[in-house]
Formats: sequence, structure tokens, C-alpha cells
Amino acid sequence: MTLEILAMNRFDPARAAAVDAETKALLDRRARTFGPASVLFYERPVHMVSAEGVFMQAADGTRYLDVYNNVPSVGHCHPKVVEAMARQAAVLNIHTRYLYDNVHTYAERLLAKLPESLAHLMLTCTGTESNDLALRLATNWTGGEGFVVTETAYHGNSAAVTAISPSSMPGRTLPAHVRAIPAPDAYRRPTNDLSADFAADLDRAIHELKTSGAGFAGFVADSIFSSDGIYADPPGFMQDAIEVVHRHGGLFIADEVQPGFGRTGDGFWGFERHGVVPDIVTMGKPMGNGYPMGGVAVRADVLQSFCDAVGYFNTFGGSPVAAAAGLAVLDAIEDEGLMENAKEVGTYLMGRLRDLARLRPSIGDVRGAGLFVGLEFVSEPEARTPDAALARRAINGLRDRGILIGAAGPFGNTLKIRPPLPFSRENADFFVDALDDFLASEPA
Amino acid sequence: MTLEILAMNRFDPARAAAVDAETKALLDRRARTFGPASVLFYERPVHMVSAEGVFMQAADGTRYLDVYNNVPSVGHCHPKVVEAMARQAAVLNIHTRYLYDNVHTYAERLLAKLPESLAHLMLTCTGTESNDLALRLATNWTGGEGFVVTETAYHGNSAAVTAISPSSMPGRTLPAHVRAIPAPDAYRRPTNDLSADFAADLDRAIHELKTSGAGFAGFVADSIFSSDGIYADPPGFMQDAIEVVHRHGGLFIADEVQPGFGRTGDGFWGFERHGVVPDIVTMGKPMGNGYPMGGVAVRADVLQSFCDAVGYFNTFGGSPVAAAAGLAVLDAIEDEGLMENAKEVGTYLMGRLRDLARLRPSIGDVRGAGLFVGLEFVSEPEARTPDAALARRAINGLRDRGILIGAAGPFGNTLKIRPPLPFSRENADFFVDALDDFLASEPA
Ligand SMILES: Cc1ncc(COP(=O)(O)O)c(C=O)c1O
Ligand SMILES: Cc1ncc(COP(=O)(O)O)c(C=O)c1O
Repeated sequence: MTLEILAMNRFDPARAAAVDAETKALLDRRARTFGPASVLFYERPVHMVSAEGVFMQAADGTRYLDVYNNVPSVGHCHPKVVEAMARQAAVLNIHTRYLYDNVHTYAERLLAKLPESLAHLMLTCTGTESNDLALRLATNWTGGEGFVVTETAYHGNSAAVTAISPSSMPGRTLPAHVRAIPAPDAYRRPTNDLSADFAADLDRAIHELKTSGAGFAGFVADSIFSSDGIYADPPGFMQDAIEVVHRHGGLFIADEVQPGFGRTGDGFWGFERHGVVPDIVTMGKPMGNGYPMGGVAVRADVLQSFCDAVGYFNTFGGSPVAAAAGLAVLDAIEDEGLMENAKEVGTYLMGRLRDLARLRPSIGDVRGAGLFVGLEFVSEPEARTPDAALARRAINGLRDRGILIGAAGPFGNTLKIRPPLPFSRENADFFVDALDDFLASEPA
Repeated sequence: MTLEILAMNRFDPARAAAVDAETKALLDRRARTFGPASVLFYERPVHMVSAEGVFMQAADGTRYLDVYNNVPSVGHCHPKVVEAMARQAAVLNIHTRYLYDNVHTYAERLLAKLPESLAHLMLTCTGTESNDLALRLATNWTGGEGFVVTETAYHGNSAAVTAISPSSMPGRTLPAHVRAIPAPDAYRRPTNDLSADFAADLDRAIHELKTSGAGFAGFVADSIFSSDGIYADPPGFMQDAIEVVHRHGGLFIADEVQPGFGRTGDGFWGFERHGVVPDIVTMGKPMGNGYPMGGVAVRADVLQSFCDAVGYFNTFGGSPVAAAAGLAVLDAIEDEGLMENAKEVGTYLMGRLRDLARLRPSIGDVRGAGLFVGLEFVSEPEARTPDAALARRAINGLRDRGILIGAAGPFGNTLKIRPPLPFSRENADFFVDALDDFLASEPA
């Protein structure tokens, strides 16, 4: 998460003086309880008290438009999700070694949204647990130990998943069983055939792993490449790469923690945009709209081989409460047309941002799919020089204009526009106008 | 969890014929959605519909006394925990990179229950995530890679934590950086000085790790040794071992997922029984009474070094909803005197079980602390021959008598008596009488 940290600030006691007394007291308590692990957004951290839909309310009375958070994907504190969770928690909350029905209703509905070859669902509590399990499934199936990821990927926080998260090890050599390939970045690496280039990089990395003796277990990729800087186009550019993965006997693990659950607007899953079929799909963040849940959809043969060899038990994963929350999230996405909204408002938003980019040369690129949009700041448009300082100023400047947002990418110069899915055209207008206003306030 | 699996049954379609049509349909759905990962308790799995306090209600109308589950530690569906969680979920549910206050109130209350040297709290979602993080903290701090655990330990399901969970790798060689020492089992390995013997085993294992080049990072132990078979006596027997850990420059990681939160009755944490001070304490299961939450309390210097080198972010860990659930659990333990109840009822229960053991030679040993009791079945009392078949029959026989229970230990012959903490003397009587009745029904 180093990229995000570029746009954040480690807690600095000096900063506390700038905030009011209540917030200062809270910062002190935070420093005492969390210690150096206290990483906060913003130069002046925001003290939150409530949230609803696409808005968050701070203690000082400011209402913020949330253009950042994808966990509350169907909207902060969605009443139906809260109710489903509360009602189930009052009745039964146990683990999966007893029989109960709603977890299977949930699994059936989720599996129906996935390619048929992904026959089974395993339930976990976080994106990290899902990816950690996926690595175990892939090494068990292939006998290989090696994984390929993209250069600024983040897949989670466990020991095994940190090892495949180059963004958690900036400037350090990756472990011997991991190779990182450049993100599919057509803006900085213009190409005539992104799909072929991306596949060629992957092929080279796999050869290296095989030569090194690590073998090849799989390719792990977030199909929206969120921490790499958000790359969605052209649709289909992952196809050649996935063919390479399979040709080498490895598994394609699609990390849908970011693009999944309707965000990209093209389909329920990000990988659908590319017409590829993963061997394992991992899920997290938006799955329970804040209730801690994750999942792994997997091929029957891959799972059978894992269960024959090891097995898996997750205490909280797949509890009736998780299932109830998950079902309410699916209902909300379907009943409220949130995937369609992501597509429509996302297209509108990108259009407006591209219009703005024509007027503001510091906006080098606008790209994305649905409600996952990247906006890259550059200091020299021709040279496309990344301008992380401007991104940092924009994040804080937008905050002063009632908008919460963050940055991504290897240079931290790309605004990560990723609001809750009920984001409206009006919200998009408010955001673009604020961005315009911020840019107008910058010295030319 | 292989030990528990001894007392369980992998789903077998043939078994389905024995259950009613509704349950059969559910088993079919389960086989389709979960596939081979479907591991269920009991020869005839129980279809649960609700639970309250120490009771669980099955679809066929049976009310079961729960003598097994420690996640719903303050009682199934505790109304105050449910209410706290629901109320908070309706107001604000975000991650820790914004400021909000209840998570610090929670951390303050929890840290106040821990030795002062454990200055900071990191919040995760599961026991696995807590232990995985603890391993990372310890390797970063010591520069060593090696860990020592007990022979039948279970610490969780991630790649790194599975590597230190011998019970997940029955019959297989442990990874090179892991050494397992015998559990502190004074029943099967009579000794004049358990503390010294346990420490000597540990010392040998650490020497081996150092000689092998892996180095020594830490000793991970659940102070009630739950999957090893439950060993609590004599109090203090861990002291020599922890001295050895520190003499070798390693960290003592106390896995409090099982004994923590008042269960052992002696103190809030299991390690208090032994008068030792861990360097890291990991938490899970009972922390949120079913809300997925875990935690790591850690020394300030160990955390500082980790944050300087890496850092950590957990999306759902420490959310306001987790904090609300955690606070309600602390309230329940304190307001309802559950730790005191664990001590009193646990002592009463062990007394009654020991009385029963005098009449029933198949009960070889009764041991434990508070409401964590092990009861070991043996076929030949003199030889102390483990009788796993009897444990299996007892689990199913008790189920027929309205009681849910499981087994632990390397032979699967030890009943694991671990009910929600509001367990009463009356509940204890019901359980002991049912056990007596079951044993009376066994052929002599
Ligand atoms: C693509 C991706 N995968 C996995 C994760 C890990 O999720 P969690 O923090 O819930 O473990 C993240 C979190 O940022 C993510 O962005
Ligand atoms: C002692 C101990 N530690 C850790 C864990 C892992 O907890 P979880 O399944 O919540 O990850 C368990 C679970 O059984 C446990 O018994």
C-alpha cells in the first residue's frame, strides 16, 4: 500500500496542533493505542462520525462526498444490508461445520454469476485470506512455487501474500519465487498490441521462474490493475496472457477484490471485460459492504486435489451472518441496478473528465471502466512526467472542497476515482466541478 | 484441525439417506456449492436454525446444550453484542485510515487488561491473520526464521501459519524452519518437573533451529494447549520455557485465540495462569462473539521495527463495527461476571467429572482450567491406551442426548469441553448426567 501512503501521511504529532482539541485528543489516544502502525489519510486527518450512501460526515460538521471507498460498495450503511446482518446475528451465528441454509443460497447465487468451470466456493473473511488460500490451491495443484504479478501489485497482508505484493516492498528485491511484470500501461508504454506485449512479458517471467527451479504455479492479477494505476483498455488485452499461463501449466488467479461486484459496469466481474476464464477467483472488500467477508471460487479438480492433501477451515468464513450480509449486497446490486449505474455514470464521469483534460494540460490521462477511473497528473504533458506532488495537493485540495479521494500507481500521481456504486451524475458533476476549481486555484 | 476431523465425518452422500428430506436437500446443495471442502460435524449432521445463550436449536425441533463452541463466548446471539453491532453498522463502518473514536476506546480497554510491556494493539479479522502477522513481527525483529510449536498445535489456515500447525500436516515432515516439541502432557509423560522438562525440549528444538541455519524467531503456544489435548497444570509450568525463549533472543507469541477473554477463569488471558509475560499476544474467536475480529498486542519496540521496515494495513480490521462488537463483549464479560462464572462452574464441573471418573474406568483423566476442560477416554486404564472410538461414540451418543461436543488431542480421544461462558451449574449437571447415561449404555 506504499502507493497510497504517498498520498497519505504517517501520523506526525506536529500536525496535531493544526486540528481542533477534540481531534487532537483523539490523535493522542490513537498514537498511544496503535503506535507507529497508525497510518492516516490526509495532512489534517478527518474525524468521521457517520456515513450514508455516498456521503460521509465529519465531527466538525463537514459532509464529504466519498469518491474513494469501495468497501461500502452499495452505499455506506445500506439499510437493507444492516438489517439483514442484524436480524441474522440475533438468530444464529455459527461456523460451517453445522448445516444451515442461507450460506448455500448465497453460494448458489454467487456461483451462478461465475463461469461454470468455477464450480465451488470457499468462504473466508478478507481479501488477504482469499489470496493466501488461492496461492495454496495453486501450488498444491501445479507442484510449482512460482508466481507472476504486476510491478506495483497489492494483494494483501499475510506473509505469503506480501511476498507477491511488490508495492509492499518498494525498492527491495522480490523473493526468488516471485516475478513482477510491467503493468499493461499503454499511456507510458505506447504499443500497437498491448495484449501481445503483456503476454510476452509474462512468458519471459514464467521462463525465468522455470529456469530458476521455482517452477510456475500461477499468474495473480487484479483485472483493473488498481494499485498499478488502473488500466482497463482495450477490452480483451488479457487474453493472450491467460493463454500463456495455461500453456505453461499454471493457474490464472483473478483477484476481484477491487473490480468485482459490478464496479466496472461491464459485467459482475472485472475479468469479463477481457473475455477470459480464471481458474480461481478471489473476492473481498465489497462482498459484505463492510461485513468482513471474502471468498474463493475454484475449479472442482483444483479443490479436490487440495482437500485430498490438506483441507481448510475458516472459523468465521461463511457464517450465517456473513451469508445474510452477502445476500443483501447481491440484492442491492440487482434491485438498484448498481452495475448499470456504474456503467452509465462511469461513462458520463469519464466523458466530463476528458473534457476537463482538454482544458487542463496537467491531466495527462483519464482511463478506467465503470466507476473505477484513473486520472493521471503530469507536469510536462509531452514528456508525461508524473506529478505526484500535484496529486497530493489535489487530494488535500479536494478534501477542502468536501471530497474524499486517494491516489494510486507507481508514482502516486494517479487519482483513484472509486466511489460507492450509487454515485449519481449529480455526484459526478460535483466532483468534476470541484476538481476544476482546485486546478484553477493552482499557480499556472 | 485433523484432530477434530477424527471426531467428524467428511460428507458422505450415503449418510444423507439417514436424514430427513429437508436436510438431505440441504446436504445436496452443500455438496454442490462447497464440494469436497464440505467438512461437517457428526455422522448425521445437525441442521441448525437458531441459538441463544448456551443452547442451539435444530430444524427437527431438538434443543441442544452447546458444550463445544467458544466463539459465542458470552452466549449465542448475545442481545447486547447484536445491538451494539447493528447500531454501529447503521451509523459508520469504515477502515482505520480515518479517525473515529470507539476503536481507541476498545484498544484502551483491551490494552489495560494486558501486561504494560504490550503497549500497542493491531486489529485483524481472524485468529489466522493475527498469528500470520505475529510471525512477520517476530521474524522482522529477530532476523531469525525458525519457530517452535507443540506437536499437535493448530494456529490457523494461511500458508505461513499452516507451516507452524503440525495438526494440519499429519504424518508429514514439518518445514525446515519449524520444530515441534511434545505437549506438556503430565498424564502420558509423568514427570517430577514439567516446567523443566518442557523447557529442556524447547531448548533442544531452538538449538536445532540455530544449528540448521534457520535461526530462532519465536515460540508460539496456546497456553491451554487446546488442540494438543488441554494441559493446564501445574500453574506456572511455562515459566522455564519462556526464560529459554528469551535467553535465545526469540519472542514468545501467546496464541490466546482459545484461552483468552476469561475462559480459563484464572485471569483474562490463559498465560496469566503461568505468570509469564509474552512479547506478542494474538487473539481471535471469542473477541467479537462471532463478529469476525482478531488482534495482536505487541511490544512497542517490536512494532516500531516492523513499521520502519514494512507496515501493515487490514481493510476490515478495527472498523467501528468491530470495535462496537468488541466493546459489547468486554462489557458482557465484566457486567455478567463471566470470568468468575468460568472459574466457579469450571471447578464444579471438573469436580463432578472427577467423581464420575472414579466410577468409570474409561475416563482416564480430567483436566483443565475454568470452562476449558479435557476428558480423556482410555481403553486400558493402567496402560492409558487412548480410546478414540469411544470418544467418537460419546460425541454422537451425547448428541442423541441433546449435547454438542467435540474431541481434541493427538489421538482424538479427549473430549474438549468448552461451552459458552454463561454455562451454569445446572448446565454442567445436565452434561455430566448425560455423559454418565451414555457411558452406562456402553457394553461393559
Ligand atoms: C487487489 C487487492 N487484493 C487484496 C486486498 C486485500 O484485502 P484485505 O485488506 O481485505 O485483506 C486488497 C486490499 O487493498 C486489494 O486491493
Ligand atoms: C489456537 C488457535 N489459533 C488460531 C486459530 C485460527 O483462527 P481462525 O480460524 O479464526 O483464523 C484457531 C482456530 O481454530 C485456534 O484454535
